[in-house]
Amino acid sequence: METLPKIGKYEFFAMPFHCDFNNRLMLGHLGNYMLNAADFHSRDRKFGFDYLTTIHRAWVLSRFAMEIEKMPKAYDKFYIETWVESAMRYFTKRNFKVSSLDGKEVYAYGKSIWAMIDTRSRQPQNILEVNDGLISDYIDKEYPCPIADVSRVIINDDLQKCRSMHPKYSDLDINGHVNSVKYIDHILDLMPAQTYKETPLKRFEIAYVAEAREGGCAQLLQRRDPGGRECEDNKG
Amino acid sequence: METLPKIGKYEFFAMPFHCDFNNRLMLGHLGNYMLNAADFHSRDRKFGFDYLTTIHRAWVLSRFAMEIEKMPKAYDKFYIETWVESAMRYFTKRNFKVSSLDGKEVYAYGKSIWAMIDTRSRQPQNILEVNDGLISDYIDKEYPCPIADVSRVIINDDLQKCRSMHPKYSDLDINGHVNSVKYIDHILDLMPAQTYKETPLKRFEIAYVAEAREGGCAQLLQRRDPGGRECEDNKG
Repeated sequence: METLPKIGKYEFFAMPFHCDFNNRLMLGHLGNYMLNAADFHSRDRKFGFDYLTTIHRAWVLSRFAMEIEKMPKAYDKFYIETWVESAMRYFTKRNFKVSSLDGKEVYAYGKSIWAMIDTRSRQPQNILEVNDGLISDYIDKEYPCPIADVSRVIINDDLQKCRSMHPKYSDLDINGHVNSVKYIDHILDLMPAQTYKETPLKRFEIAYVAEAREGGCAQLLQRRDPGGRECEDNKG
Repeated sequence: METLPKIGKYEFFAMPFHCDFNNRLMLGHLGNYMLNAADFHSRDRKFGFDYLTTIHRAWVLSRFAMEIEKMPKAYDKFYIETWVESAMRYFTKRNFKVSSLDGKEVYAYGKSIWAMIDTRSRQPQNILEVNDGLISDYIDKEYPCPIADVSRVIINDDLQKCRSMHPKYSDLDINGHVNSVKYIDHILDLMPAQTYKETPLKRFEIAYVAEAREGGCAQLLQRRDPGGRECEDNKG
């Protein structure tokens, strides 16, 4: 069997109705394209969702960081490259590079950490046991992803409650859970849209700790840096 | 100059993260793909948003009906064909056909009505005056779109208020207005997700009368047919 390259490279297109009023791809949509690229990469290499389903396992995104140089404009075609940087028993690191077709422009980088669960018990599973540790054949430690690692999210007392989110049909993904990037949309929605006209997003980082489900309620909290913007719902 | 065919045909792909728990493309995403196809078609033929912007005009979607035979599954590639059925001074009808690559399976049809406005005055403009009535060269009255026409939406006293919608950043499109298909998402979200497991959507129809804007509030009302499901928010 021919071995696929370690790095998967997929072409995407900034559909105009996925762009915001800056004429640039929205972060949530870029995130969604990245997750799709991750799925294509793992699927082609026989450790994707579709194979895992047959053995009652699933990937769970644990942390995700995106750093934006410049967002693709409407109608821009671009590549998303993705590869596995490391794989341990309970976590694997997957990186992303988003660049123009001619390779001259880098739009964004991404880093992510994934765990694997048993879909019946929801318990963590040993990633290296799947397909005799097949994932280890595809590790690339060399290809650069020059952004800061995902970090711990600090939750303490100076967080202020902004808004509640009640997951609904359009929030849910193929597994019936809230789509990982929908959280990103809900978080970005805390700020007035004008924010994104004035201040292009530089880095977005998220840690997934528990799943929000339909019928449940997720609290959106905010800590504002001095001089930072405040969620609209806390004003007045 | 070579004339393009009247019917535009564009290939799309049901990205897994655009699918719901039925493993099928979500209606809102299909609607978004259809609007993108409409944009590609009109753009290639020199009466698209990008050209209109230069003369301070824009298309405004007025009515939109989709009828679903069967939704594309995750990873399915499909074509969206779109064409102009008629063009009058203040309205143009645009149809859609969504089918499998081999043409054997029809996934959906769509009908839509569009107006053109001046982006400064927001007043309706004569569509036939744009580029010397260029749009008339592309009218195809013959290609079948065998679904019922868009109809009038009847608003009367037996409508019950379900929910309020406060447009936010992720709802807004390239023009800074609420994305046309985001209304569809918000309307589908009135029903518990389980509804879509039990009852595949057959037809969705929407009339756009006024734009919801960030900072504003749109009311979501419901009339329930005998035996029909009720919005969750009205229960208990």
